[in-house]
Amino acid sequence: MAKAGVLGAGSWGTALALLLDKNGHDVTVWSIDQAEVEMLDREREHKSKLPGVKLPQTMKFTNEIQEAITDQDFMVLAVPSPFTRATAKKMAPFVKEGQKIVNVAKGIEESTLMTLSEQIEQEIPQADVAVLSGPSHAEEVGRCLPTTCVVGARTKETAEYLQKMFMNEVFRVYTSPDILGIELGGSLKNVIALAAGIADGLGYGDNTKAALITRGIAEIARLGVKMGGKIESFTGLTGIGDLIVTCASVHSRNRKAGYLIGQGRTMQQAMDEVQMVVEGVYSTKAAVKLAQKYEVQMPIIEQVNAVLFEGKSAAEAVKELMLRDGKTEHSDLPWEA
Amino acid sequence: MAKAGVLGAGSWGTALALLLDKNGHDVTVWSIDQAEVEMLDREREHKSKLPGVKLPQTMKFTNEIQEAITDQDFMVLAVPSPFTRATAKKMAPFVKEGQKIVNVAKGIEESTLMTLSEQIEQEIPQADVAVLSGPSHAEEVGRCLPTTCVVGARTKETAEYLQKMFMNEVFRVYTSPDILGIELGGSLKNVIALAAGIADGLGYGDNTKAALITRGIAEIARLGVKMGGKIESFTGLTGIGDLIVTCASVHSRNRKAGYLIGQGRTMQQAMDEVQMVVEGVYSTKAAVKLAQKYEVQMPIIEQVNAVLFEGKSAAEAVKELMLRDGKTEHSDLPWEA
Repeated sequence: MAKAGVLGAGSWGTALALLLDKNGHDVTVWSIDQAEVEMLDREREHKSKLPGVKLPQTMKFTNEIQEAITDQDFMVLAVPSPFTRATAKKMAPFVKEGQKIVNVAKGIEESTLMTLSEQIEQEIPQADVAVLSGPSHAEEVGRCLPTTCVVGARTKETAEYLQKMFMNEVFRVYTSPDILGIELGGSLKNVIALAAGIADGLGYGDNTKAALITRGIAEIARLGVKMGGKIESFTGLTGIGDLIVTCASVHSRNRKAGYLIGQGRTMQQAMDEVQMVVEGVYSTKAAVKLAQKYEVQMPIIEQVNAVLFEGKSAAEAVKELMLRDGKTEHSDLPWEA
Repeated sequence: MAKAGVLGAGSWGTALALLLDKNGHDVTVWSIDQAEVEMLDREREHKSKLPGVKLPQTMKFTNEIQEAITDQDFMVLAVPSPFTRATAKKMAPFVKEGQKIVNVAKGIEESTLMTLSEQIEQEIPQADVAVLSGPSHAEEVGRCLPTTCVVGARTKETAEYLQKMFMNEVFRVYTSPDILGIELGGSLKNVIALAAGIADGLGYGDNTKAALITRGIAEIARLGVKMGGKIESFTGLTGIGDLIVTCASVHSRNRKAGYLIGQGRTMQQAMDEVQMVVEGVYSTKAAVKLAQKYEVQMPIIEQVNAVLFEGKSAAEAVKELMLRDGKTEHSDLPWEA
């Protein structure tokens, strides 16, 4: 048994805290929202974010960040990406040297183009920062449906320690040294989920969606490898695997916003209708900046950007993608003749 | 404009013949079934196999194989895989030196473990054999929904020629030199589609299915690369792309048979209920033989085989997959420490 602090009581933080509790660990969950903490402690269920999933009495909830940090064997950072840096700054004074912190959110800071783990390492230099990612709807993990994830860490020792903490018969964990590749795949995939939603909204079929997913991860991988990520992460659970789950989901906000845009709404109308933050819209801006900085061709992401921010029609964007010059699928493969 | 012969008037052959006709080519379609030829000529629609798709008067239909072969600029071979060798043998006497033949079916001969293009080359050594594959439901191609495919050929010249013949604003074609990788991905994917169906039948969710798809293509790639295929084909449109389309489809027989098995039917009961050939059942046998021959670990395919042919319960098989020893996702990636 280990002691674990989980920061953030959204759907994913709550589902992972429950998983760790089931694995026999001593879990304390922190939320910045005192009302949420009291509700969780009283109801033993997060009715708005993880409805129908009972949380046992052994799980502790607190509004005091220090309480969730002090004396923990490892910590899970599960706040939404816009709050990661600020939360890390708040945590820093209480974090001991070498403290293991697993970040489970995804995103790229638009102003700095830094990944979340890079932001955390900047704010808490004494921490041993790792990431957990993969095809994992929180609702399904809460219901104990078989799920796989990858832990990325700087050292094999940390990765294998965290693998042991999370793994059980419905949650299989692989290890990886490629933190950067894992984070880039998880962040940039939302742009492709938007594109897949747009295709659905236009009334296109499974062929189009599979093409967008496959060619989408190919261009993300081109960028990610140039930035130092490993190709294996983009073709693995944290890349294409996570993208498949996002594009299949009827709950995905990115897919839904894309669907509305495909049906003819502007980006703003779609955002208003979905009434929630659509991560992919921000990821698109970051992706376009990264493509320029690293001089990588990203035709799908460029078309999504043109539809979102330049008023291009979605149907026109798809047509341009289809009619680009005929290409070889993988330019590195040699021909016999 | 080119002259094209299409052999086989199933849903895929018919959809591709229509595509070529729309691209301005002179198309003759052969079927072994005279009643089918007369019906197509009269009705100008394949009501059982491609309903709702009108076939223009410019398309010719014949029951005489020689008529579909003589004087063609290129040919499309679209018969189901169990008939590929026999059809190639029948074609051989009429095929000129260097004749381009694009095979569009998928499968591995269980007795010889040969791919379809290898069988065709054996029967028609004078032909220039190519393949066309990718995420492409015939129904959607028939309805002109945006679709992408890959043409694999021995020479760049043949690949680019065929790319030009097929490509238009709703059908984007990439080229590739990796015929073997394209064929292995297309054939072995059906085993994973069965596994995905089994997971659905057990009531599991999107997380489980995305894991099976991602780890499934990883083990197919391990085998395929050892056999001489290129990793890029397995992570591309003809590998994971095609697998995504198959696993998403409610029409896939492999997925449906798997679903019934997941719900508790035996393989034979599932086959009887689907009332059609379930390709994945035969592919599983071929895959297991290939895994043994090339000494590659294929845990998902082994479990599918145990469920199909050894009476293992599907739930038990999933549990074993989840509880194997914790592993690194990609064993080739180095750790810092």
